[in-house]
Amino acid sequence: MTTSIERVQYSDRVPIRSIILRPDGGSGLAGQQARVGGWVKTGRKADKDAFAFLELNDGSCASNLQIIVEADRGDLGQLVLTGTCLQVDGVLKLPPDGKKQKVELQVQKVIHVGVVDASKYPLPKTRLPLELLRDYVHLRARTNAMGAVARIRDELSYATKRFFHESGFRYVNTPNITTSDCEGAGEMFQVTTLISEAEKLEKNLIKNPPPSEVDVESAKLIIKQRGNDVAQLKSAKASKQEIGAAVAELQKSKENVLKMEERSKLQPGIPQKDGKIDYSQDFFARQAFLTVSGQLQLESYACALSTVYTFGPTFRAEKSHTSRHLAEFWMVEPEMAFAELEHDMDCAEDYVKFMCQWLLDHCMEDMEFFADKIDKSCIDRITMSAKTPFARITYTEAVELLTEAVKNGKKFENHVEWGIDLASEHERYLTEVKFQKPVIVYNYPKEIKAFYMRLNDDSKTVAAMDVLVPKVGIILGTLNLYN
Amino acid sequence: MTTSIERVQYSDRVPIRSIILRPDGGSGLAGQQARVGGWVKTGRKADKDAFAFLELNDGSCASNLQIIVEADRGDLGQLVLTGTCLQVDGVLKLPPDGKKQKVELQVQKVIHVGVVDASKYPLPKTRLPLELLRDYVHLRARTNAMGAVARIRDELSYATKRFFHESGFRYVNTPNITTSDCEGAGEMFQVTTLISEAEKLEKNLIKNPPPSEVDVESAKLIIKQRGNDVAQLKSAKASKQEIGAAVAELQKSKENVLKMEERSKLQPGIPQKDGKIDYSQDFFARQAFLTVSGQLQLESYACALSTVYTFGPTFRAEKSHTSRHLAEFWMVEPEMAFAELEHDMDCAEDYVKFMCQWLLDHCMEDMEFFADKIDKSCIDRITMSAKTPFARITYTEAVELLTEAVKNGKKFENHVEWGIDLASEHERYLTEVKFQKPVIVYNYPKEIKAFYMRLNDDSKTVAAMDVLVPKVGIILGTLNLYN
Repeated sequence: MTTSIERVQYSDRVPIRSIILRPDGGSGLAGQQARVGGWVKTGRKADKDAFAFLELNDGSCASNLQIIVEADRGDLGQLVLTGTCLQVDGVLKLPPDGKKQKVELQVQKVIHVGVVDASKYPLPKTRLPLELLRDYVHLRARTNAMGAVARIRDELSYATKRFFHESGFRYVNTPNITTSDCEGAGEMFQVTTLISEAEKLEKNLIKNPPPSEVDVESAKLIIKQRGNDVAQLKSAKASKQEIGAAVAELQKSKENVLKMEERSKLQPGIPQKDGKIDYSQDFFARQAFLTVSGQLQLESYACALSTVYTFGPTFRAEKSHTSRHLAEFWMVEPEMAFAELEHDMDCAEDYVKFMCQWLLDHCMEDMEFFADKIDKSCIDRITMSAKTPFARITYTEAVELLTEAVKNGKKFENHVEWGIDLASEHERYLTEVKFQKPVIVYNYPKEIKAFYMRLNDDSKTVAAMDVLVPKVGIILGTLNLYN
Repeated sequence: MTTSIERVQYSDRVPIRSIILRPDGGSGLAGQQARVGGWVKTGRKADKDAFAFLELNDGSCASNLQIIVEADRGDLGQLVLTGTCLQVDGVLKLPPDGKKQKVELQVQKVIHVGVVDASKYPLPKTRLPLELLRDYVHLRARTNAMGAVARIRDELSYATKRFFHESGFRYVNTPNITTSDCEGAGEMFQVTTLISEAEKLEKNLIKNPPPSEVDVESAKLIIKQRGNDVAQLKSAKASKQEIGAAVAELQKSKENVLKMEERSKLQPGIPQKDGKIDYSQDFFARQAFLTVSGQLQLESYACALSTVYTFGPTFRAEKSHTSRHLAEFWMVEPEMAFAELEHDMDCAEDYVKFMCQWLLDHCMEDMEFFADKIDKSCIDRITMSAKTPFARITYTEAVELLTEAVKNGKKFENHVEWGIDLASEHERYLTEVKFQKPVIVYNYPKEIKAFYMRLNDDSKTVAAMDVLVPKVGIILGTLNLYN
């Protein structure tokens, strides 16, 4: 009895993942037929060009499937080129030498070849710097690193939906175009049709210039003339038909003047009123921006559905070119009614743990790639975050710990005293040195947090919290509390 | 033995749904303690103000929980007001008369009251027109209709993620800000910081006018003077210190002139170059827009990960005020490599069926509200779409059926012949009269579909398909095919 292979839904092919990512490396599938599709990562001819070995990847996982094509099945010279698109039918078989664990595919029929011009294909077999890949945005998802990023983003996005859905949160589509600023969270992008409308108008005015005053005056004379025509016909007791026709002509000439007057008022450029831009002529009849946060809308939904969240794009027009500043990014924003700061911290900790556990359960192959190539300790840190209870300390305790560290000789660039905004170096000391695990800091001085945070009974601190994580810093800030 | 009640996660309260939406209406929970929170829908005092009945809703479901508060537990006059926010501890009990099936909550302790000013609270107990609710966007999620819409949107959004995840699609975050138009799918919103930067500059120039030519000239004279100072000190063999100080002064005056010259060039208004707007000074150093489709980005990911989709906001600046035109809406876009049109139709049909079945399984209470108040046949149509195989006909067959209908006396406003774009009345005839179920029309004339659709072997039609649904029309168009 053979194990059956999981088919791709809505295709006749088998995802390479379901062959390769098995505990037995697919060896239990030997002897089975499979159709696969993908792109050649590397290829080489062998045995005096009698056949070729191809490493095929279909993006379903990081691993490639080894494909063996004999010379009578296709143009081997073409097939071995990196980037070639290939769909084939074949039989899975164990490698002959028995050294490799993974199963291979012996091609019976080449169904489709998407050829590649090797002189133009920009992705080599070897690794390119990520920065250079920016020049090949349309192809970079085929690289190991970007493929892994794409799969992990997909899994974490799905896990986020799972977590909040299963925790009873309702997802709210907060708007992306907004007329309100949110707590001045950042510089906003303006959304407008004024410029494109002005450009259209400008082209139109060049092609078809507005009537001059003289044009309008002569058109007005025509009205007068036609009016006279009607009067004459009436006094001459002309037929109803004749008078009707003349009245219609008169009407037409009046409409014509109205249109001309309208057009003669047209001004090139962005419409102005009282020396300012006239936003009443913009698409939404007012100034509009891209959202910096869905918080305002979520607050009103939290006061109706109790427990809500949003997960969507957010926009900041900050001219900061650091790895922490993006013009466009996705943000999770939960809002809970009838909850205390403790519930908030529980939710934050559970969410971070859920994400970490999801990575370990569903993305191990890609995480291993990152551990190998980018960040040696990433799997260890994720595992630790998934399993270890987070430390929870008040801001006051955090400042005490930092002050103690300074007394014991630790040097910080930023002075430590109650009331400061914790600097990145302080956060790193707490998570990386003192606790060596994620730390939730809560009850911050009211002066350094937003005005809408709930004031604690001490009248000095507010019910806010931040989750700090080793090597990253703050990954999650306060959810808001309503009653 | 009592049944336990599902608690809200990250709160001490119980969602009203878990009390009321049970087959026994919660009667099996009688005798149990529960903390609930929510907003009063209606309230009335009874038995000479000895107690009050409140209908409490927390948005977890459409149904309210009846709350009984005795006069010694709170200010009944306040509590009965529609919109009052309330968190209470109590005991669930069966209604005394045994007529109602649903359980009630006898309040033991009022934990929190968010008072309402009845003279200002805009939502009455009775139903308001949806159009009027637009004026109370911040409160309308508390109404039955908008609450139901919010819960259904949440469920369908989650079901979409589930469907594509479980079908092996990878979710791709396609960008919302883009510099490319997508097949001219619609009018685009421009994203810019040029206007706000120009406004900032204008304010700055008023507050702090740029230097005049005379200012710059006199600043240049100072350079000359300071240069002379240095020369004099040098020839007088002054101390190194003295010369150094003079050189520093000279340097400062040079920098000052540079800054002044820079400022004197500042022009109010949007920056221009060669008579056009100078987009090199915009945030992205080029003209940028909000996306009308993630298709271009998805295509490149489909050619790396094989099977991908996006689900995010899309923007169209069309000045059409119909129920079919939105400036901002969410769209699902799947792209599949190595798939044929048949797979595409299978996927589309399965997706629509999955959504419909999800509604029936998870949203019945809210669907019943819509069937009762808005659209009598909505549940029947959803059920039919979930259970019945869709009809599948080619465009050519569709035109034949329409032509036959015309022969049999059916009148259409739009002429029917091969090559036309099917009008809404044609689609409705096919789904509502001819088949009385969803219909997939495929293989359209190449002239009426986008250039990138795959040309069929007949060289006349392309591998495109649309899903038509009774009462709605097209709800889903072609996914693209790549090889």
